[in-house]
Amino acid sequence: MPEHDIAPQSHNGAALLDPEPERPATPPGDLSDAVSAPGRELLAVLARHLPRIRAEAGPNDRDGTFPAETFRAFGVDGVLGATVPAELGGLGVSRLHDVAVALLRVAEADASTALALHAQLSRGITLTYEWEHGAPPTRALAERLLRAMARGEAVVCGAVKDFGREVTRLRPDGAGGWLLSGRKMLVTMAPIATHFVVSAQAPMAGGETLLYAPIVARDTPGLSIVDGWSGLGMRASGTLDIAFDDCPVPAGDVLARGSVGAHSDAALAGQAISSVAMLGIYAGVAQAARDFTVDAVARRSAEAPAASRTLVAEIEARLYTLKATASAALVNIDELSPRLEMDSGERGRRMMTPFQCAKVTVNQLAAEVVDDCVTVVGGATYVAEHPLARLYRDVRAGRFMQPYTYADGVDYLSAQVLGLERDNNYVSLRATRPADSR
Amino acid sequence: MPEHDIAPQSHNGAALLDPEPERPATPPGDLSDAVSAPGRELLAVLARHLPRIRAEAGPNDRDGTFPAETFRAFGVDGVLGATVPAELGGLGVSRLHDVAVALLRVAEADASTALALHAQLSRGITLTYEWEHGAPPTRALAERLLRAMARGEAVVCGAVKDFGREVTRLRPDGAGGWLLSGRKMLVTMAPIATHFVVSAQAPMAGGETLLYAPIVARDTPGLSIVDGWSGLGMRASGTLDIAFDDCPVPAGDVLARGSVGAHSDAALAGQAISSVAMLGIYAGVAQAARDFTVDAVARRSAEAPAASRTLVAEIEARLYTLKATASAALVNIDELSPRLEMDSGERGRRMMTPFQCAKVTVNQLAAEVVDDCVTVVGGATYVAEHPLARLYRDVRAGRFMQPYTYADGVDYLSAQVLGLERDNNYVSLRATRPADSR
Amino acid sequence: MPEHDIAPQSHNGAALLDPEPERPATPPGDLSDAVSAPGRELLAVLARHLPRIRAEAGPNDRDGTFPAETFRAFGVDGVLGATVPAELGGLGVSRLHDVAVALLRVAEADASTALALHAQLSRGITLTYEWEHGAPPTRALAERLLRAMARGEAVVCGAVKDFGREVTRLRPDGAGGWLLSGRKMLVTMAPIATHFVVSAQAPMAGGETLLYAPIVARDTPGLSIVDGWSGLGMRASGTLDIAFDDCPVPAGDVLARGSVGAHSDAALAGQAISSVAMLGIYAGVAQAARDFTVDAVARRSAEAPAASRTLVAEIEARLYTLKATASAALVNIDELSPRLEMDSGERGRRMMTPFQCAKVTVNQLAAEVVDDCVTVVGGATYVAEHPLARLYRDVRAGRFMQPYTYADGVDYLSAQVLGLERDNNYVSLRATRPADSR
Amino acid sequence: MPEHDIAPQSHNGAALLDPEPERPATPPGDLSDAVSAPGRELLAVLARHLPRIRAEAGPNDRDGTFPAETFRAFGVDGVLGATVPAELGGLGVSRLHDVAVALLRVAEADASTALALHAQLSRGITLTYEWEHGAPPTRALAERLLRAMARGEAVVCGAVKDFGREVTRLRPDGAGGWLLSGRKMLVTMAPIATHFVVSAQAPMAGGETLLYAPIVARDTPGLSIVDGWSGLGMRASGTLDIAFDDCPVPAGDVLARGSVGAHSDAALAGQAISSVAMLGIYAGVAQAARDFTVDAVARRSAEAPAASRTLVAEIEARLYTLKATASAALVNIDELSPRLEMDSGERGRRMMTPFQCAKVTVNQLAAEVVDDCVTVVGGATYVAEHPLARLYRDVRAGRFMQPYTYADGVDYLSAQVLGLERDNNYVSLRATRPADSR
Repeated sequence: MPEHDIAPQSHNGAALLDPEPERPATPPGDLSDAVSAPGRELLAVLARHLPRIRAEAGPNDRDGTFPAETFRAFGVDGVLGATVPAELGGLGVSRLHDVAVALLRVAEADASTALALHAQLSRGITLTYEWEHGAPPTRALAERLLRAMARGEAVVCGAVKDFGREVTRLRPDGAGGWLLSGRKMLVTMAPIATHFVVSAQAPMAGGETLLYAPIVARDTPGLSIVDGWSGLGMRASGTLDIAFDDCPVPAGDVLARGSVGAHSDAALAGQAISSVAMLGIYAGVAQAARDFTVDAVARRSAEAPAASRTLVAEIEARLYTLKATASAALVNIDELSPRLEMDSGERGRRMMTPFQCAKVTVNQLAAEVVDDCVTVVGGATYVAEHPLARLYRDVRAGRFMQPYTYADGVDYLSAQVLGLERDNNYVSLRATRPADSR
Repeated sequence: MPEHDIAPQSHNGAALLDPEPERPATPPGDLSDAVSAPGRELLAVLARHLPRIRAEAGPNDRDGTFPAETFRAFGVDGVLGATVPAELGGLGVSRLHDVAVALLRVAEADASTALALHAQLSRGITLTYEWEHGAPPTRALAERLLRAMARGEAVVCGAVKDFGREVTRLRPDGAGGWLLSGRKMLVTMAPIATHFVVSAQAPMAGGETLLYAPIVARDTPGLSIVDGWSGLGMRASGTLDIAFDDCPVPAGDVLARGSVGAHSDAALAGQAISSVAMLGIYAGVAQAARDFTVDAVARRSAEAPAASRTLVAEIEARLYTLKATASAALVNIDELSPRLEMDSGERGRRMMTPFQCAKVTVNQLAAEVVDDCVTVVGGATYVAEHPLARLYRDVRAGRFMQPYTYADGVDYLSAQVLGLERDNNYVSLRATRPADSR
Repeated sequence: MPEHDIAPQSHNGAALLDPEPERPATPPGDLSDAVSAPGRELLAVLARHLPRIRAEAGPNDRDGTFPAETFRAFGVDGVLGATVPAELGGLGVSRLHDVAVALLRVAEADASTALALHAQLSRGITLTYEWEHGAPPTRALAERLLRAMARGEAVVCGAVKDFGREVTRLRPDGAGGWLLSGRKMLVTMAPIATHFVVSAQAPMAGGETLLYAPIVARDTPGLSIVDGWSGLGMRASGTLDIAFDDCPVPAGDVLARGSVGAHSDAALAGQAISSVAMLGIYAGVAQAARDFTVDAVARRSAEAPAASRTLVAEIEARLYTLKATASAALVNIDELSPRLEMDSGERGRRMMTPFQCAKVTVNQLAAEVVDDCVTVVGGATYVAEHPLARLYRDVRAGRFMQPYTYADGVDYLSAQVLGLERDNNYVSLRATRPADSR
Repeated sequence: MPEHDIAPQSHNGAALLDPEPERPATPPGDLSDAVSAPGRELLAVLARHLPRIRAEAGPNDRDGTFPAETFRAFGVDGVLGATVPAELGGLGVSRLHDVAVALLRVAEADASTALALHAQLSRGITLTYEWEHGAPPTRALAERLLRAMARGEAVVCGAVKDFGREVTRLRPDGAGGWLLSGRKMLVTMAPIATHFVVSAQAPMAGGETLLYAPIVARDTPGLSIVDGWSGLGMRASGTLDIAFDDCPVPAGDVLARGSVGAHSDAALAGQAISSVAMLGIYAGVAQAARDFTVDAVARRSAEAPAASRTLVAEIEARLYTLKATASAALVNIDELSPRLEMDSGERGRRMMTPFQCAKVTVNQLAAEVVDDCVTVVGGATYVAEHPLARLYRDVRAGRFMQPYTYADGVDYLSAQVLGLERDNNYVSLRATRPADSR
């Protein structure tokens, strides 16, 4: 490991202030360690929280309780600002690879906590991009939020999926600002959110529909939090619905996100960056299942039967495979992330294609690993609160994570490979589908 | 369909009383219909109960409530005596194929109800065997129980699996009877049980350990029902623990079940007959998932995407496969069941081998079907009480059903195929394993 | 069940001795035996040929040689007329289940021989239908061919697939007959064929294109046999191309087969009946691989390693599954075959859907079984002429058998399930596709 | 990283132009490019040979002909010395990652050529280790061979697997040297070999059996090349048997390889290093199948059917996964390779475990990719000489590659995971097995 990797001045992931920018280590390919110094620092900080997270995982799953205290402690320790640049007060983790490793560690203890934390860490990455490359009002907004995230004071959720057949819409308020109305579902980390980044449509004169992402503070008039979701798994992720009733949003708090039907692949970069680190969560779920199982089998007095030895070997091979595949997709995005000189569509596709390949594999293999672990450990796992039963429920969330469902992933990948024209922006694509088929 | 199949005198499955015994129809191979007249009658009776079962499935799953009222109504309608011979007052269903079809229908509505009902229907089959072929005291006991089952007054559960490291044991009471002590777990249908058939060991002078199955009435002194199991799925199956504290059992109420380590394959016949109809339950789970999914996709306005069409076709093929495979194993056992002239070990193996092949397939394909259905329907299923989420949890019970776990099934099948010596009696086999490896 | 199956003049010794007409036995579900007396007779006759077929399998595979001598001997023993009705001199096998069992036995010895024999046996079934239900000239033609098949003098191949982009067409000869031109590929059993049933199109005034199946004698002027196909597997199946250059065909020798784009599901019955028995071939391939492997492992001195025991058990389960599934599909078609009172589209779909489900499964499982066998036996199999290497090549033909490719099977099954309109007649469907996509 | 990788005298143009020593790039994780300058140079050199290799692949496969002319040209261009250190005249490729990328490129054109080339490139790596770390006579021998390899004059094959039940043995010649007798099979690249590194046993007084690897020149008296292997695939790899009849071997030409039954994991490092780059070959096979298929589907006029789109997406995901997994295992070994300060057993296991995980995955996914490609392209591939048919045969070699079969891999991985004692040295392990079970 080169010594400059651990130099004291290296808390800063951004190259600007550092005359000798840190060169990340070669990623080990198995998500076993961070490649950047800030990433390693984040792992060290998180390690202190893992015992509590692990201890609360079962009860929170049973009750569907969000681990608010853990997130409060995250705020105190800077975890909520882990991906905020150092010069704005954050830990400066900029590598998605390292974010995924951190989420893997958390998910080994509790997948729900990792899923909620992902929302914040991912937001730090994308707001940093806005801060570096946005228009002046956007930069100011991003800076304000990022600084608050670093202080543990801002918690920023994404709200993408419309509830039912209703479309969440922005309309001009007549005074240069906007009014937001609609309802979003599956908003993770919502119980402690201070802000929501909301996917919204704005129909324009002429028939075009523009896409926006207004950032709405929790105390905005007209915003209400609707309880009620009780998940099959990921039950402690604080996943709720949010309703908007003519919520006022200043023009400067609205990010442009293209238009419906534009078929612009430039959007893919941000969508890949926002979601790819979630692969670490499912790697953590599979790792936890594997570790539990190996421990259980190794402690038995009787020799492991033939099928258990075969399954244990297959579990090991699949876990290695899923981590290697996730790692490759993460490193690829990390490499492309700063290459803004590239054609933006090309850059987007070159991020998204390996990510989608990895997502298909991670979703499948993580579920297979957990399932084989259940088989190996046996009937004792078939209890609602058994750790493997929780993992069996949690792991199934993977296929539903953004940006693409399995069916959309197949459409995307096959279109890429066969050279077919297609709208790859999933927000735009959904907006063009009948409400019952979104 | 030959007319004698539906002749009025055909309520009687036993050949003895019938000068022109009914010849069952060729099984359709897809578990779509019963092959015997009593089987068809059972389906007709059950059809009246399905709406209630379906309506209660969700709430009972959520709350872990046993559908006691449904079982009371089953008793009134003769369902609890469906496999009791007609001359003892039952419906006379003797074909395991038809029992499986009945369980499939119930499991489409609620798998937990089907699992509990299986315990009773399976008991009717095995007690009928005792009634026909047992020693006089056993015949008397069996007749008494069977008549009570036909009246809906007896509900007889099996209690096989020891709790923890404790072994359930019989010891002589010094007066010609026995005393039973120990604790059993995973006793299905226990809330309404009137009797329990308990797997117990009796260590003998000389080191041999005999295996017995005492039949113990619920109100026996020393018997207590221990609540507490909360399953990942099959939550309404009334699965509880039963503890025995020196429960007195008359000698005539104890069935001999060989000895530990005897390596007798004669036991396989009874073990196969007791469990094979459960294949119908998992066929029903897969069928319910498939039907829900096809309905959901067909109602969408948008054209089904490529992946959904592919998965729907694979679901259809797998469901057909699992039903055909289960059907073949059931018909095979029905054919061998009356062939008592055969070598008993050979008969046992020829029942068990196809059953285990089918069990491997049914467990795998049922889980794959449900999983693919979840993928096709999408994120809306990822809710604790969604029907597909329930099926996703229920289906996973399959691998843990008697007699063999996956690992034991692999050991059994490979030993059969390769000509290796092995104790195939799972009750005996478990008794010889270290307590932490049972 | 056609009445001649149980007619006293049956060639079947069992039937002759039995004053009560035989009722087919319940199919065992594992393709282990025939269910009809003529089927059992066929198995007995074939048993005498198996040693030679087995001995020649390797050399014929290596050299791509058709086993002409075996087929000559088949002719002498009535095997080439096995599916010809007894009153026309044949063995009177009418059950596709039994045809499949016979093909399984042959395929265990050599899959190529079974594939070629299937062409003849299948033709006997379909010509019998024409003889029973066709228009008078067709009946006469069918009777003539069937009687010759029974004598071993007629060998009738199907010729379905057009070579390259050329379409095989019939045009009127101006004198009430037809002229046939085009080229067919993949005509199995061609080296000894006396007649070819050719799929041909006839464009009509008005734009409609009719489909016909002219039956063309080998010595017809303009017909030539084009050598050259060298298959990956099935190398001894005598698969060749046939070219037609204005071959004259009398009107009475042309069977009507509907029109392109008619979307008639009535055609499905004949297409299912023609092809379903091929499932037995792939069951035989898998069985041969399994038997070789079990024998090899059982003869080793060392204990089988864990993976081998697991794979052997999985092989056993999969082989059972594929045979049970094939059996169910065959029995279903045998049950529906005589039900001409049904709606013809409904009857066609009810035959085809289970068949396609079974085809998906059989193709997949047979390949998996062979592949696992190769893994278990090890590197010694990786030799061009090793029996398992031959099976590895042979088994891959399954996915390409009529009527549907995997992709067409997915389209068919998903359309059936989802209620989508589609042309299910694969001959018609292919005719409407661009030449490069057939 | 050995220092010669970045030495100014490197054959590598890139390095010469760059005053700052090259730091290997982060591996892209998809085997798309080399990470070292010598690796990139090797790719550039190979690119000139690919058209010929591609053109000859079909004919050489058909005839089982070794591409001797290609290897002669490889010698002229330095390819046969690619992994020889630059100071000994080679290209200086020391990264196994880059060797694998090179083999992938060759295997895309012809897998047999890649398999043969692997033998030489792998030998360069291991002889370099002997040259750097061996005893003086070994160093001298290694230097002599390496310099000759760099000049294209030495071609050094491995000969590991005994033929039949015969064990290849060394015995002292009484004059300080050895005599070698036995027969080896499956020696790849044998037609042009100048030397063979032979796995041999030497039974010692006292019952111990030592393992040696004598290096034997082709013209040694008593050595004969035995023709005859005709593979299922990899038919142009020049795989032959070599017989030794009291071949004299000087003491200095014999490498010590431990003893039978020593349970030393130190041997794992060399065994992993020798074989891991073969993962690139199967990645290349899968890549070639994918590219052929995508091209075929994209050129069709008709819209790709649902199943083809789904399979194409799955192919893409699996290919990405197998390359990412292979890449991770390769990079891991490259990182551990120079870490000679580690415990040698620990280093061996940390190399072998990820390699075996990757091998399980690569073997499985490569075969699945090829199989799915065959399905997508369709029946036209079912021809002996079709490129996909060749790949279907070639890909199946993967499971038989050293060091472990699938069964040994399962034993190894499960023992590692569960902490079981086991002899992991496959050469030693095979020596202890009954001859019929090796």
